Amino acid sequence: MPDSPPTASVLIIGNEVLSGRTQDVNVKFLATRLGEIGIPLREVRIIPDIAHVIITTVNEVRARFTYLFTTGGIGPTHDDITSECVAAAFGVPWEPHPEAWALLEPRYPPGGFNAARQRMATMPRGARLIANPVSIAPGFEIGNVFVMAGVPEVMRAMFESLVPRLQHGPRVVSLTVHVTGIPEGTLAEGLGAIQARFPGLDLGSYPFYRRRGNRDAPERENGVAVVAKGTDAAAATAAIAEVSELLRRLGGNPLPGEPSP
Amino acid sequence: MPDSPPTASVLIIGNEVLSGRTQDVNVKFLATRLGEIGIPLREVRIIPDIAHVIITTVNEVRARFTYLFTTGGIGPTHDDITSECVAAAFGVPWEPHPEAWALLEPRYPPGGFNAARQRMATMPRGARLIANPVSIAPGFEIGNVFVMAGVPEVMRAMFESLVPRLQHGPRVVSLTVHVTGIPEGTLAEGLGAIQARFPGLDLGSYPFYRRRGNRDAPERENGVAVVAKGTDAAAATAAIAEVSELLRRLGGNPLPGEPSP
Repeated sequence: MPDSPPTASVLIIGNEVLSGRTQDVNVKFLATRLGEIGIPLREVRIIPDIAHVIITTVNEVRARFTYLFTTGGIGPTHDDITSECVAAAFGVPWEPHPEAWALLEPRYPPGGFNAARQRMATMPRGARLIANPVSIAPGFEIGNVFVMAGVPEVMRAMFESLVPRLQHGPRVVSLTVHVTGIPEGTLAEGLGAIQARFPGLDLGSYPFYRRRGNRDAPERENGVAVVAKGTDAAAATAAIAEVSELLRRLGGNPLPGEPSP
Repeated sequence: MPDSPPTASVLIIGNEVLSGRTQDVNVKFLATRLGEIGIPLREVRIIPDIAHVIITTVNEVRARFTYLFTTGGIGPTHDDITSECVAAAFGVPWEPHPEAWALLEPRYPPGGFNAARQRMATMPRGARLIANPVSIAPGFEIGNVFVMAGVPEVMRAMFESLVPRLQHGPRVVSLTVHVTGIPEGTLAEGLGAIQARFPGLDLGSYPFYRRRGNRDAPERENGVAVVAKGTDAAAATAAIAEVSELLRRLGGNPLPGEPSP
């Protein structure tokens, strides 16, 4: 493991996300949890269930980040090809995994552990299981790649079970202030100057829109949230104080935290 | 333009998605709309607001697909660097765009069209504007790259305004049947055989879970949805008929369409 802070990438494997059938929610969960344990998420790719695309992408991405987390494609059907593609990416055989076999076989009546289900117990040689407390069929880890289910409930349980294996980095602190009535274009210059004084932080500015007032007098309210993010909590606090001062100078009434919807 | 069907890729640019602050909803919208007009979405990447990452990724991705659609990073603040990065990717100057300038300057009081806002009217040389009926500041098109806002409401309006410029492909038809009480592992073998008979279609199988019954007798119901997708509507209809027959043979009661939540 390198001494520099660890980094993460995520690969969402599934035609259902690329076709618009399914709204992905795994990225937000993984992004949030990885940030909390100090492994910033640096890239996400969403790709289809096509073997050569999965193999190429796994090899491209795993070389560039400390960890690669994949979701999707480890069920029993013909379009579940992630596991064999990861074996191909690592150049190792894809073979029955005794531990996974022992977990799954007894769950079915005689004859029920059929060829399709045996695929869920077939893994790249050398894979280490990732527990699945929700529906038993495990994920696995090989090299710096963690292969998880696509169903959010299962993915989340798998991720929590593998967290202790990861090399955590310094925790990222995120502080937010928001204001209404000041357009982004008005605060941009001052915000850029504050960013320049805090090069170790990421300052982000995010416009928001919400409806206010009652049904008889609806009102559209626009505002901006400013987020300061970094591993130096004191710097983040100081930067947010400067942002708040800037917003007051521009005539606003900055409030801490995210805007309520 | 090639004669083979056009393909699309999407690049989501923004630290706020990679940090988990924001739940992306643009992928689902673009995936759905692109499918409807026959330009299947083949890859999505989510990357941070870092110049060299944006430049490299734009050039990598635009070379591989008919169209690249980007969202995010075209506002007035210091972290809005998509536009200048796209200019760098194409190796052209980033300069005031007279048409964009003429749209934006009159919107502000004297002095209000400041340096930050002028950035929103600065574009790669040769860019063609994409109208923004929601908040005026336009996106732009250069080569096969379409640069849009990240705010979903604005992005959607921009996308609809550029649809007429795209080379549409054959429309993708998607038919779904769902069933409860049959686990994926039981139908996997038969489904694989049907997929083999319809090589021009994508057959996907997606487990679902829902709560049934009333509050006093809650019940968890598991099922599977099977989707047949392709440009040949007759083949999709025939494949779904075969899937329904398979599900009935396995003792199920297949129903057309997506499962209700």
